[in-house]
Amino acid sequence: MTDTHTADATALATQMAALGRAAVGCREALAQSSTDQRNQALLTAAAQIRARRPEILEANRQDMEAARARGLSSAMLDRLQLDDKRVESMAKGLQDIAALADPVGSVSAEWSRPNGMVIQRVRVPLGVIGIIYESRPNVTADAGALCLKSGNPVILRGGSESRRSSAAIHECLVHGLESAGLPQACIQLVPTADRAAVGLMLSGMTEYINVIVPRGGRSLVERVQAEARVPVIGHLEGICHVYVDRDANVEMARRIVLNAKMRRTGICGSAETLLVDRAGAATHLAGLIEALIDAGCEVRGDADAQRADARVKPATEEDWRTEYLDAIISVRVVDGVDAAIEHIARYGSAHTEAIVTDNTATAERFLRRVDSAIVLHNASTQFADGGEFGMGAEIGISTDRFHARGPVGVEQLTSYKYVVRGAGQVRPG
Amino acid sequence: MTDTHTADATALATQMAALGRAAVGCREALAQSSTDQRNQALLTAAAQIRARRPEILEANRQDMEAARARGLSSAMLDRLQLDDKRVESMAKGLQDIAALADPVGSVSAEWSRPNGMVIQRVRVPLGVIGIIYESRPNVTADAGALCLKSGNPVILRGGSESRRSSAAIHECLVHGLESAGLPQACIQLVPTADRAAVGLMLSGMTEYINVIVPRGGRSLVERVQAEARVPVIGHLEGICHVYVDRDANVEMARRIVLNAKMRRTGICGSAETLLVDRAGAATHLAGLIEALIDAGCEVRGDADAQRADARVKPATEEDWRTEYLDAIISVRVVDGVDAAIEHIARYGSAHTEAIVTDNTATAERFLRRVDSAIVLHNASTQFADGGEFGMGAEIGISTDRFHARGPVGVEQLTSYKYVVRGAGQVRPG
Repeated sequence: MTDTHTADATALATQMAALGRAAVGCREALAQSSTDQRNQALLTAAAQIRARRPEILEANRQDMEAARARGLSSAMLDRLQLDDKRVESMAKGLQDIAALADPVGSVSAEWSRPNGMVIQRVRVPLGVIGIIYESRPNVTADAGALCLKSGNPVILRGGSESRRSSAAIHECLVHGLESAGLPQACIQLVPTADRAAVGLMLSGMTEYINVIVPRGGRSLVERVQAEARVPVIGHLEGICHVYVDRDANVEMARRIVLNAKMRRTGICGSAETLLVDRAGAATHLAGLIEALIDAGCEVRGDADAQRADARVKPATEEDWRTEYLDAIISVRVVDGVDAAIEHIARYGSAHTEAIVTDNTATAERFLRRVDSAIVLHNASTQFADGGEFGMGAEIGISTDRFHARGPVGVEQLTSYKYVVRGAGQVRPG
Repeated sequence: MTDTHTADATALATQMAALGRAAVGCREALAQSSTDQRNQALLTAAAQIRARRPEILEANRQDMEAARARGLSSAMLDRLQLDDKRVESMAKGLQDIAALADPVGSVSAEWSRPNGMVIQRVRVPLGVIGIIYESRPNVTADAGALCLKSGNPVILRGGSESRRSSAAIHECLVHGLESAGLPQACIQLVPTADRAAVGLMLSGMTEYINVIVPRGGRSLVERVQAEARVPVIGHLEGICHVYVDRDANVEMARRIVLNAKMRRTGICGSAETLLVDRAGAATHLAGLIEALIDAGCEVRGDADAQRADARVKPATEEDWRTEYLDAIISVRVVDGVDAAIEHIARYGSAHTEAIVTDNTATAERFLRRVDSAIVLHNASTQFADGGEFGMGAEIGISTDRFHARGPVGVEQLTSYKYVVRGAGQVRPG
């Protein structure tokens, strides 16, 4: 038993190292490829996804059948399922990424020195990216395409439950690469369902993988952060707040709070806690709670919120720390903007927070002092999204402070180098 | 014995956690402090260093005496030693950092969305920085000042051999902080010589320390990269190359090669390998070797280099991988720019490489394909320096690709956040 296990582990390590070497082997070819070449690969892949829709849906049907047999939750089944619309949306996503400006080779700064040297800071790819994700098969297309656009070889490790769907999508991407004269190994899919592959990507392939991007729930991200021996771009969770100030317009506050919570409850930018200024509670609180309950949201509040509406359930300390990702919100009355900022610093996850107020000074105080990746004045937290920011598709929202913060698009998947042009300068002294 | 050890370890962990908490405790105050306040602290600290020169030199004399008694090498003693000029240079360094533009709060990008939202990307401090360094006491002033300027609380852990000197310098920094109304804990010095403190900073204080910057030799940096559980900004080594192309101007090549190798041999940007184009060897090779030997440099070369000058010693495979940090250079004849690029990719450390050529197309090929933090055309590798780049003082040169690459100045010690100003926008769909 142990011998078999050891033999399997060795075989897996060998297999994963081969993926790593292949990825490293195409790093330069990809970094030096033209914009047109990478875009051509993406457009061909999009066309392939449309052309092979029946095969992709059949592979997905098999994944769904196996998943049902294993008793997966309906939420997981929904994430796994593809249909005509979702397949078309993947193809469209690849076209959108092809249409983005090429970050590779773009000059982000340029200046001259008194000695005549001209210095440019030029974007270059980050290196080999490992992406670890769960059941959504569309991540295979999105993440593969974002890495390709930004010139980074990628090793994709999807959830085992979506492996047939991902393999069918991956074939389309490989076809795109070949058609553009790019190495197949630019986008590789880990071909095994062995969960030990994840451990190898996190800590056993440091010589091949430069960055890990986890896409999934809290348990995946926590495992990645605990085990990874390479840099990680990720986020733990989005405990997002809306603070309604005494000087908020009542109707605007209602619209923003409803949108921030209820537009989609399962995304990281959805609001989980509503903070209402005590000085504005008389005019704002009851109306906001009523609007939320009318929209089908469960409201858990402090004593003030409970007094404002009898349908409000009591909130516990745990509620302030909870990312519901559901039609539930916690509501608290606070003593002005500074108390709101303190609540956010204490309970928030530094993802996205919004203030609603017509008072510019109060808004600026909030925007300056709240230490989150995204802070908004008079706009919904659900704008926390690379597409909504105009950055094109994104691979996630980072709550790290290192390298990339906020939406992670193609630009955030690059590094840079300094190019210096001289005329024989030597350094004095 | 074990009990004492455990008790000591617990006491140290408690002490270090207190430093961590104090650093976190002043994060917001420092992030929100004004540019003037931070600059005032730096200028007062500079004045203090000048005023307390006798005490600093006396502390350094005691450090030197203890170091001699412990039999430290003359190179280490030189790094440890302070004199009037070095003390003045520290004070001047603080003034220079005060004169830099404030990165905190600066807007690095701004754009509007079709729905009217205005988005800014604003620089914010990175967080608590841990700096681990060796014998140079001036790092206490430089690193403390760079972190203060960029709004980051810092925990400094200097070498035990320089602890009296560092403590005396640290007092000046603390005086500067107090005079500007900033918390003392913005710049803390680990007060113990216990080497276990380094291990705690690397992996036992992840809830307090956001980034580690190692400043020291290879063994320190390797330990940091192996043990750190927080992001690291660092570099392993600088195996820098100069490639002299067939189209190089002979006199310019001589000047650049001599400067790149011999201006200072102990810095990371000094050249360690000279690559000469075979098609230009007849005109360039012998003259370059002669100039280097005349300047006091030992030359180790391949068969071609040895044929060009009988004084050239044979280079081994190991030489191409060696950072001499001394008056030694390895010389190899290569078949044109592509072979030079391949040699650099195989043996280099992705730090800094230069090409000398009058052929623009060849130069551009080199600049584009060489995957190093800094690539130069017709200029010396010794320009690899934040000051020479016009970025002001630096905390080191990063050979990482993640977050910061090349010179790490105050800008590279920041993160950013997105500030969104709206007028009631909600996200459709």
